[in-house]
Amino acid sequence: MALSTDFTELLGVRHPIALAPMAGAAGGALAAAVSRAGGLGLVGGGYGEPDWLERELSVVARGTDRPWGVGFLAWAVDVRAVERALAFRPAAVMLSFGDPGPFVDRVRDASAAVLIQVTDVEEARRAVDLGADVIVAQGTESGGHGARRGRSTFPFVPLVADLAAPVPVLAAGGIGDGRGVAAALALGAAGALIGTRFQATTEASVGSAVREALLEGRGQDTERNGVLDIARGSSWPVERYTARTLGHPYLDQWRDRESELARDGNAPLKYRDDVARGVIPAEPVWAGEAVDLITDLPSAAELVTTLAAQAEDVLTRAGRRQPADGSHTAG
Amino acid sequence: MALSTDFTELLGVRHPIALAPMAGAAGGALAAAVSRAGGLGLVGGGYGEPDWLERELSVVARGTDRPWGVGFLAWAVDVRAVERALAFRPAAVMLSFGDPGPFVDRVRDASAAVLIQVTDVEEARRAVDLGADVIVAQGTESGGHGARRGRSTFPFVPLVADLAAPVPVLAAGGIGDGRGVAAALALGAAGALIGTRFQATTEASVGSAVREALLEGRGQDTERNGVLDIARGSSWPVERYTARTLGHPYLDQWRDRESELARDGNAPLKYRDDVARGVIPAEPVWAGEAVDLITDLPSAAELVTTLAAQAEDVLTRAGRRQPADGSHTAG
Repeated sequence: MALSTDFTELLGVRHPIALAPMAGAAGGALAAAVSRAGGLGLVGGGYGEPDWLERELSVVARGTDRPWGVGFLAWAVDVRAVERALAFRPAAVMLSFGDPGPFVDRVRDASAAVLIQVTDVEEARRAVDLGADVIVAQGTESGGHGARRGRSTFPFVPLVADLAAPVPVLAAGGIGDGRGVAAALALGAAGALIGTRFQATTEASVGSAVREALLEGRGQDTERNGVLDIARGSSWPVERYTARTLGHPYLDQWRDRESELARDGNAPLKYRDDVARGVIPAEPVWAGEAVDLITDLPSAAELVTTLAAQAEDVLTRAGRRQPADGSHTAG
Repeated sequence: MALSTDFTELLGVRHPIALAPMAGAAGGALAAAVSRAGGLGLVGGGYGEPDWLERELSVVARGTDRPWGVGFLAWAVDVRAVERALAFRPAAVMLSFGDPGPFVDRVRDASAAVLIQVTDVEEARRAVDLGADVIVAQGTESGGHGARRGRSTFPFVPLVADLAAPVPVLAAGGIGDGRGVAAALALGAAGALIGTRFQATTEASVGSAVREALLEGRGQDTERNGVLDIARGSSWPVERYTARTLGHPYLDQWRDRESELARDGNAPLKYRDDVARGVIPAEPVWAGEAVDLITDLPSAAELVTTLAAQAEDVLTRAGRRQPADGSHTAG
């Protein structure tokens, strides 16, 4: 019997597993594959770029008849981007980083579930007040963007679960295998939202260099920093949000000197030039602290199935040691 | 039936719960109470101060006939301190922060279990090589001292569990209730080592101001920093280890200026003077990020019993949603 939670019930999915809507990496093909396998595939709508969105949402809508969704960066998009996405009839829209307020009514009017990602207690309270259907509690272990002064997944999830109840919570950040999915449920979450691990699947829209880096990368080599957003000339509000990536030459060069880098108007040109000359990789490798647990490149369907089966097995066996000879211990 | 793991089996304890050997706070009375309740009580031997150790180990040895242990700071103690403790016949000796190498043989010769706490993968490998009986994987969420550049509990525990197998691993850092104990087991640990939560029990050797601070404190107000060790004139190797505490005036004053503070030879005198004048509290409040979950001041026995019962309940129910009307869902 599959694991059943308030999240699987609410969204009508088989497994308490959601694909993090990673801008770029989580395209329509990956989201559709996750949804077909029984998870909730979320397309990484990111900044709401119209052509990309149109194309990828067409792919996911054609690719599955199971529930799927799309995620946006609240600080980066306007209501029109969300409305364009709603025309494809997603089952869920996730809003992260910034004020979800302006979007909630439109999403609800379209009968899609409102997922709001939060990084601290104040954001969690606000999400409850806005009537979120699901709250995603993101820990600082997560790959890619997150709060500069973040909370850790392990103590943050039960806190948000208590605060949000009865609204179901997904745990995000640091979840790399079925043990993590099981631990998320144990901590009081109704499921796990997983990013980095899904980048290392055949359907992810990432280059082979990124896949290789994820296979070899170690959690201790990941770092949450604003340097790369500043260097790229990104419009991310870096005073509030940083990104966790694997090591990068610019981190070694500019670590702890963000304001100096920000004052250098030529930095984005220099960055592009360094990319062109092959001095630095074309893109940072966004990776969470659980990257150690990535040792293969399965299909998304295989991954969802494995995560769910392992989580179920873990919850059946944890704390119920079987002696080596097979006899029963006294209770 | 109580939860059973390789840790409970190895140590002969009823619950997969250990008291973190917090220097000062974890005296003989608290350790004995934890052990009597079925956990593993570990006295905080800290720096190995002979009189304190003699007194507290007498208390724990007289206070319980169940297994108990004692922990030391490896960087701070010499072999004689460990030998003095072994004379009281502990079931376990835990070594944290620094090289456990010089102590392992003595502990093993005394037929006590060797527990080694680790904060990164290299330390975990070394602990396996030294033949540790139990490895404690400490995440950066933990209260008090830990690695300056630490790993988070959620992704660190499964990594150490894989690396150490079949040696049992305890998870430490960020565990504040039975959900955390259950999550530790789900992540592949054989138990949980808990500190901050046990400071808020009737038997902990902490003042009422600390108890009040723990009840009111929020995880978001804790901070891992070297400032307070430098200001106190402590001999902790601050380049490697920092301490997580609740907010403190000195943190606001000296944050990000540790080397400047370290160069000020008068800082420890100034600190003592500020304590004497009541400008700053007598001691930092060592607290982990799970401090939000502390809402009462039970006895240690009540706490152990509650943690174990909640963990067992969580593992029975997680992922097995019961519909509101009591009927069964389709699998």
